[in-house]
Amino acid sequence: MSKVLIVGSAALDSIKTPKANKPKLLGGAACYASVASSYFAPTSIVAVVGEDFPKKYVDLLKDHKLDLSDFKEAKGKTFYWSGEYEENMNNRRTLCLELGVFADFKPELTAKNRSTPFVMLGNITPELQMHVLEQMKDPVFVLADTMDFHIKGSPVALKKLLKKIDCLSLNDSEAKLLTGKENLLEAASRIHKMGPSVVIIKKGEYGAMLSYGGGIFLAPAYPLAKAVDPTGAGDTFAGGLMGYLASHATTKADVDKHLRKAILAGTVIASYCCEDFGFLKVAKLDKKMIRQRISDLEKMILF
Amino acid sequence: MSKVLIVGSAALDSIKTPKANKPKLLGGAACYASVASSYFAPTSIVAVVGEDFPKKYVDLLKDHKLDLSDFKEAKGKTFYWSGEYEENMNNRRTLCLELGVFADFKPELTAKNRSTPFVMLGNITPELQMHVLEQMKDPVFVLADTMDFHIKGSPVALKKLLKKIDCLSLNDSEAKLLTGKENLLEAASRIHKMGPSVVIIKKGEYGAMLSYGGGIFLAPAYPLAKAVDPTGAGDTFAGGLMGYLASHATTKADVDKHLRKAILAGTVIASYCCEDFGFLKVAKLDKKMIRQRISDLEKMILF
Repeated sequence: MSKVLIVGSAALDSIKTPKANKPKLLGGAACYASVASSYFAPTSIVAVVGEDFPKKYVDLLKDHKLDLSDFKEAKGKTFYWSGEYEENMNNRRTLCLELGVFADFKPELTAKNRSTPFVMLGNITPELQMHVLEQMKDPVFVLADTMDFHIKGSPVALKKLLKKIDCLSLNDSEAKLLTGKENLLEAASRIHKMGPSVVIIKKGEYGAMLSYGGGIFLAPAYPLAKAVDPTGAGDTFAGGLMGYLASHATTKADVDKHLRKAILAGTVIASYCCEDFGFLKVAKLDKKMIRQRISDLEKMILF
Repeated sequence: MSKVLIVGSAALDSIKTPKANKPKLLGGAACYASVASSYFAPTSIVAVVGEDFPKKYVDLLKDHKLDLSDFKEAKGKTFYWSGEYEENMNNRRTLCLELGVFADFKPELTAKNRSTPFVMLGNITPELQMHVLEQMKDPVFVLADTMDFHIKGSPVALKKLLKKIDCLSLNDSEAKLLTGKENLLEAASRIHKMGPSVVIIKKGEYGAMLSYGGGIFLAPAYPLAKAVDPTGAGDTFAGGLMGYLASHATTKADVDKHLRKAILAGTVIASYCCEDFGFLKVAKLDKKMIRQRISDLEKMILF
């Protein structure tokens, strides 16, 4: 059983959907991914929060036995995001974004955390992702997540980072933006040339495409009778995937062997995440529920 | 090896894409589906064409050993459709539609064809689909395809037909239109209540969802490096699926056992169909090419 280190944002999210309005939920890529990962492997979260960060949210992270030695409180306010989803849950609009203490986030990791073998560089600036990566000692597998904002805003730093990581995870429109290629096979092939030997293109409700040494793997999303709130889906997907890998693999060659099943594990955690607002569902899972849904998903793929 | 009977349109299609303009190609649901089916099982095509239908297109159907005893020529012009695709190939616009001899299409099948065990009621009015179905003697498996035009235009006849068939094949937006349900699991469940024990919801480049006695099966589309023309994809998908079933199943229980693989077979024929205009690619396949791509697709699904 290896350990996972996950860096990213910790946030307070206010989420509007056509049916509900939920103020100041726990949010942020690092929180979502770390809780997802924790169901499979011991996990360190690297993030910063402000003085307004509720104790109950710290307790939630502690309940998942997260290593909080690099989870810091700073003077000021926690990263705050508010957004609104349309009826179909695919389109979302940012209403407000206040960086707060996240504006000065530049983590210096504890010595112990620097030797964590599985590293997820959550969705933050490529410069900050590189800053963390440079502190790591011979990681086995490094996954970075990115988004349109960084692809447009920090192209040079992102290209530099891509040369240093094993896996890039991004969604389909972002893959097109990064490569200029509409076709996802072509986009994946371009990204491989930029560095990562593993490319995961997320397609939301249509699943994910993995491109790696073992070829192409097409994973469907777990079909939900009802999706309530997709916030955190991409982060829990990647976090669940990293946790699964850390619990099954110890070398890069191992990783290739377990990647397909890791994607299904991530898919399942992401599906639970979408079934309720924020962490309401994803914080209350257990291994039996997860195993059951992975098994259900496998039955929908087998032919 | 059972036989397949396929009824639908035979047409001349003029297709515009951002890169090309192809006048009067062979088209029509019955032609696409029958040629697809012919790669797996002997197939009868039930359709009508006008005096302008080129001999070379009849030859193409003959080359695929189609039973043409219910393929009729009538006085007048062949069904003509012209349409234009946008760059992303998902949106298409009908520029012109002339029914010609298809307006009076009301086939009376030969005695021999009435006892065909596998029946595909291609995308024509539900009244006409019922007219053909009523002539069939104890078919093993009946699949009907439909579309938004008939869901809106002939809801009563469609509901009546649904009670008599085994399988409805339609695309995701049409499933939503028919059931009023955005969620595909809910939509499939509603359609089951209308009659069909097998529901196939097509999602274009995102694959297909099968809902049947064996649960849910999520099939991806075969990822193409380049899609040239999606015309006929849905018809070749269903035709390939029917041909595969007829070549593997002889009873309804058998059908359930082979449905998942049949969907992969249909997916592969549809993928070839999209690789060139009209029949340019899909008429030139052989069993080895098909087997190879099915095997490639399977490797992208296995976990």
